[in-house]
Amino acid sequence: MKAFFYPKKVAVVGASAKKGSVGNEILKNLKAFKGSLYAVNPKYSEIEGVECYPSVSSLPETVDLAIIAIPARTVADVVDECGRRGIKNIIVISAGFKETGVEGARLEEKLIEVAKKYNIKLLGPNCLGVMNPEINLNATFSPFMPRKGRIAFLSQSGAFILAVTLWAQKTKFGFSKIVSMGNKAILDEADFLEYFAEDDRTDVIMLYIEGVKNGKRFMEVSKKVGKDKPIVVLKAGKTESGARAASSHTGSLAGSYEVYKTAFEQCGIVTAENAEELFDFSFALSKYRKIGKVAIITNSGGPGVMASDAVEIYGLEMSNFSIETIKALKELLPPSANFYNPVDVLGDADTERFIKTLKILSEDPNVNSIISILAPTAQIDFERVVDEVLKVKKPIFCCFMGLDSKNEDRLIENGIPNFFDPSRAVRVMSSVEKYSKMSFEKREVPKFDVSEKSREVFEKIKKKFVGIEGMELLDCYGIKIAPFGIARNAEEALEIADRIGYPVVLKIVSPDIVHKSDIGAIKLNVTRENIKRSFYDIVSRVESLMPEARIEGVMVQKMISGGREVIIGLKKDPQFGKVVMFGLGGIYVEVFKDVSFKIAPLSWDDAYDMIKKVKSYQLLKGVRGEKGVDIDAIAETILRFTQLGMDYPVLEMEINPLKVFEKGCVAIDFRMFLEV
Amino acid sequence: MKAFFYPKKVAVVGASAKKGSVGNEILKNLKAFKGSLYAVNPKYSEIEGVECYPSVSSLPETVDLAIIAIPARTVADVVDECGRRGIKNIIVISAGFKETGVEGARLEEKLIEVAKKYNIKLLGPNCLGVMNPEINLNATFSPFMPRKGRIAFLSQSGAFILAVTLWAQKTKFGFSKIVSMGNKAILDEADFLEYFAEDDRTDVIMLYIEGVKNGKRFMEVSKKVGKDKPIVVLKAGKTESGARAASSHTGSLAGSYEVYKTAFEQCGIVTAENAEELFDFSFALSKYRKIGKVAIITNSGGPGVMASDAVEIYGLEMSNFSIETIKALKELLPPSANFYNPVDVLGDADTERFIKTLKILSEDPNVNSIISILAPTAQIDFERVVDEVLKVKKPIFCCFMGLDSKNEDRLIENGIPNFFDPSRAVRVMSSVEKYSKMSFEKREVPKFDVSEKSREVFEKIKKKFVGIEGMELLDCYGIKIAPFGIARNAEEALEIADRIGYPVVLKIVSPDIVHKSDIGAIKLNVTRENIKRSFYDIVSRVESLMPEARIEGVMVQKMISGGREVIIGLKKDPQFGKVVMFGLGGIYVEVFKDVSFKIAPLSWDDAYDMIKKVKSYQLLKGVRGEKGVDIDAIAETILRFTQLGMDYPVLEMEINPLKVFEKGCVAIDFRMFLEV
Repeated sequence: MKAFFYPKKVAVVGASAKKGSVGNEILKNLKAFKGSLYAVNPKYSEIEGVECYPSVSSLPETVDLAIIAIPARTVADVVDECGRRGIKNIIVISAGFKETGVEGARLEEKLIEVAKKYNIKLLGPNCLGVMNPEINLNATFSPFMPRKGRIAFLSQSGAFILAVTLWAQKTKFGFSKIVSMGNKAILDEADFLEYFAEDDRTDVIMLYIEGVKNGKRFMEVSKKVGKDKPIVVLKAGKTESGARAASSHTGSLAGSYEVYKTAFEQCGIVTAENAEELFDFSFALSKYRKIGKVAIITNSGGPGVMASDAVEIYGLEMSNFSIETIKALKELLPPSANFYNPVDVLGDADTERFIKTLKILSEDPNVNSIISILAPTAQIDFERVVDEVLKVKKPIFCCFMGLDSKNEDRLIENGIPNFFDPSRAVRVMSSVEKYSKMSFEKREVPKFDVSEKSREVFEKIKKKFVGIEGMELLDCYGIKIAPFGIARNAEEALEIADRIGYPVVLKIVSPDIVHKSDIGAIKLNVTRENIKRSFYDIVSRVESLMPEARIEGVMVQKMISGGREVIIGLKKDPQFGKVVMFGLGGIYVEVFKDVSFKIAPLSWDDAYDMIKKVKSYQLLKGVRGEKGVDIDAIAETILRFTQLGMDYPVLEMEINPLKVFEKGCVAIDFRMFLEV
Repeated sequence: MKAFFYPKKVAVVGASAKKGSVGNEILKNLKAFKGSLYAVNPKYSEIEGVECYPSVSSLPETVDLAIIAIPARTVADVVDECGRRGIKNIIVISAGFKETGVEGARLEEKLIEVAKKYNIKLLGPNCLGVMNPEINLNATFSPFMPRKGRIAFLSQSGAFILAVTLWAQKTKFGFSKIVSMGNKAILDEADFLEYFAEDDRTDVIMLYIEGVKNGKRFMEVSKKVGKDKPIVVLKAGKTESGARAASSHTGSLAGSYEVYKTAFEQCGIVTAENAEELFDFSFALSKYRKIGKVAIITNSGGPGVMASDAVEIYGLEMSNFSIETIKALKELLPPSANFYNPVDVLGDADTERFIKTLKILSEDPNVNSIISILAPTAQIDFERVVDEVLKVKKPIFCCFMGLDSKNEDRLIENGIPNFFDPSRAVRVMSSVEKYSKMSFEKREVPKFDVSEKSREVFEKIKKKFVGIEGMELLDCYGIKIAPFGIARNAEEALEIADRIGYPVVLKIVSPDIVHKSDIGAIKLNVTRENIKRSFYDIVSRVESLMPEARIEGVMVQKMISGGREVIIGLKKDPQFGKVVMFGLGGIYVEVFKDVSFKIAPLSWDDAYDMIKKVKSYQLLKGVRGEKGVDIDAIAETILRFTQLGMDYPVLEMEINPLKVFEKGCVAIDFRMFLEV
């Protein structure tokens, strides 16, 4: 991969003399880099002062990086030619591949085939290229080369790179490397993440994606890389209007963006919700990795209050100053100043007073990070304040309102964030704190013994939709189920109920009826006296209300009273595989959408995390003198359920409800959709 | 008030020749304004070329605005002198008043007294002054005079004005008037809102406050002003760590910032959560008042997706284009472009293609507003694009990423917002849409007949804490209560229960026990058989567990089964008076904090709004085949309860729970705290 960023010899295939053309822009941009540069185009012998050859084969020597900008239909042939010439790294700028439809997708297939044949590392197609400001390498057709910095930027959108690099030129934001991934035919985000992990010029990786190519590998690599080099991601495409109609709560709640966010969190990636956060968070994380207890220093009450509001809103912790600090502040500051956090040095403070206060705070062991706020009063000399800020050894965030651009540049060059809005500074700090609390440990996945007959049970019930029949499968996986039987007539219902004991619940068994209670196809608290009548009732209700529904029988189940109802769900996500959901039943899921997710497989810690993350967890712990329920049993059920979901080709499945008691839990209802 | 912004003759009392002093800065700043200017200071006869007089009395003529910057202890005397001289408008810049403690507060009292004696309009003390860029009037000691614009800025923090005006100079953000309110001894936000309502140079009012002086008047004036001139507010001091320990749910949930937000919403003020939003929202509202259906046009997929994500997240509506539009786009754009919303004209689009598309969209009657996104490709000429944007007759928001500053200025001068981040543009649009949906109508407050004996009942029970005894008061206000009596011994309990019917509930009556169920001081479902034993049980439990608690008896109440539990609360807020709260009982209030607020008095619409605003409203309407409950009865109870709360000196009161049925509702428990 190194050759993409530190090539010695580069060929531009499709170089052109035509001003404004992609092939011309790339060649011109590359002239700044120090190394051999060749143009390839049969029409010229020289372009922009660069020697030009009619074909890759005719180049005087092989190159370590070829950049291709020719019509899509001819790309595969040229890549083949490169392969024969021993070129191992190629950037395909050309568009016209799978992004344009069926014909383009065919061309891309062909391209992948050729690249694989020669084991070529291929970036693109349909991309902007790469930049390495460190060595002045601009292998793109963009004229905007940013300054060098410590942030690598990996983007699925070339246009976004254009915009970001132009903006970066204005703001002095620097980059270590920039990669436009395009269609990701061969190389994808995981490959570059791995490379940046090794790149000693990169401290932080900033990622813009619309999707990932291989969710599992992406997560694995991110977890490895992110531990030392924070990864900040902006994922576009949060809302899918075209999502398929959901067939379970898990299905409807585990939207693609929720799953992405779950995956990001699980592998230690910091999520930005918009472009501004993407830059802000990346910049801060390139210098700071932890926030801890915050001190605020200000020369103006209002902005100081804004900052302390934000500290509380974003869940950071205010520092309690040491006695020495307060003593020193009382000596230094006028009596009407505030000596406690936030420290207000007052509007008439001169530079000296501010600097001395800053020094006192930065030496207090109870202070881990500082927010330094200044309104531009006549008494403040920003030049000297910035001198002092640069000496502070702790994370410091500035809100120097109306700071001149020279001093703003000095802060930026030293990696110190400066914002007008105190609440923005605090939001950024909270992202750093969040990163510091992420776990990069490998978690162990437990393996439960499963009944030998589980496979047999599965084969028996294997069809696209599995309803109540699947309860037996839960049983095989050691999940306790409420005893039940399926009755085809009233007599059978009576027999089953006599066996399992009264009272019972009757439920229609039909693949066509999702909301059974809505049409009265469930009867609770059925006794021996009225079981037959209830059976007829249910069947006749269904026959009259939904005559087209297939009736497979009536479930006779032991009535389980009391307990808390929870839902455990699982859904196969196209990118990340099996996703597990947990929540409390009823309104908590339906109205408050109070659920948590994790990508399978899960460790014990994961299972407990999921349970604790829902707001209604308090109900499980017990509120107002009520006893709590068996959290351990829920965690174990989540894990056994997940193991079941991993063992079979499940699309969606859900225990709803699982009834949880002070001791133990019981699955009442279960549904499963299998891959066809 | 006009003299503050359009004075003809100004005197600066405390003008000084000392460079860098406040009295010198103000005088210098004022020299730019065209009118008579006098300095007052016994030490000089001329300062900075301005004639100087020893005292206000010795001025050659009276002035219409005096600006005072002298030590606090001498201010009141000078104001008195001004009063005698007939000066009616005064700005007191001097600090050292109530912001510094008891002594300063005394000086401020004196100042108010003098000002009132002469009916003087006094701004400050402890303020920065005012600015009117239109006539180059800078009556502050800030050197940063912004350009003129259509936004009035009213701020409680002088430092924030310094910061904002310096920032505004850089960004070309313009203002119609700027006022630093300081301590608001006489003039407060409501006075200036009223003035800006009449000021034909002001379209929007931007407000920074830490608190308001008179909540009721502020709301009244805002509602009148905001209908034509949007008011955008940033309220600092969101979190009060020092809030008093709450004695009811209403008390703990109706924190000061929640009440402020409620008040803002109720009188049509747009709330900004931080400084960035304050500027963004104000700027957008100075040109646009409604968003409606949104069209997105972009030359780059990624940022286009970010914008449509944000449209969904912020609850705006995407436009469905007319058939003509889609036909026209299909003719104009290459086949792989997206002809639907968001329209992607593709990265290779030239200026012509973009402009034509923009024109088509702006002519579609199904499009009300446009988000126009451009990545800076070589093919795009921003100059020409901006020409075209200026012609669009609908609200248009730009995300011209990396736009040059000349063209950015052209957009700003024409009131067109431009952001790098598409999601920021959409957030701003959503604030405009929110404004368009606000109600400025006067709502009618119903008046229910109240039992004649209510006053008598109140007098009887009047003490600081009113528990169950207050139920009778609810009855007087036409709120149905569960029948009950207070028993002092077991025999009485039996008598009462015999009268009201079984089963009953027994509850301890004690001002010292808040969570009765926690200590077992409530017995449900008590029958005739066990009522005496239950009575003894309760009393002995309380006596052993809380020996210090005063026991006033045991309440014997008809047991009311079924129904939904809701809470209706009321709290006296120091700024806004009585605040009413509504929510569903139990976990919905305690864990999800799913409650709504309104400032009393309330109209029928207000009551229904409150009920519909809680998320758990769905439970009241009925979910999953369950029947809903009597919403009308809840609304009526809210109104009757509010009337009761307005009639008496209530600090806090709460019906918890009110049980609501398919038809009607019943108050089960009630508490009330009165002002001492």
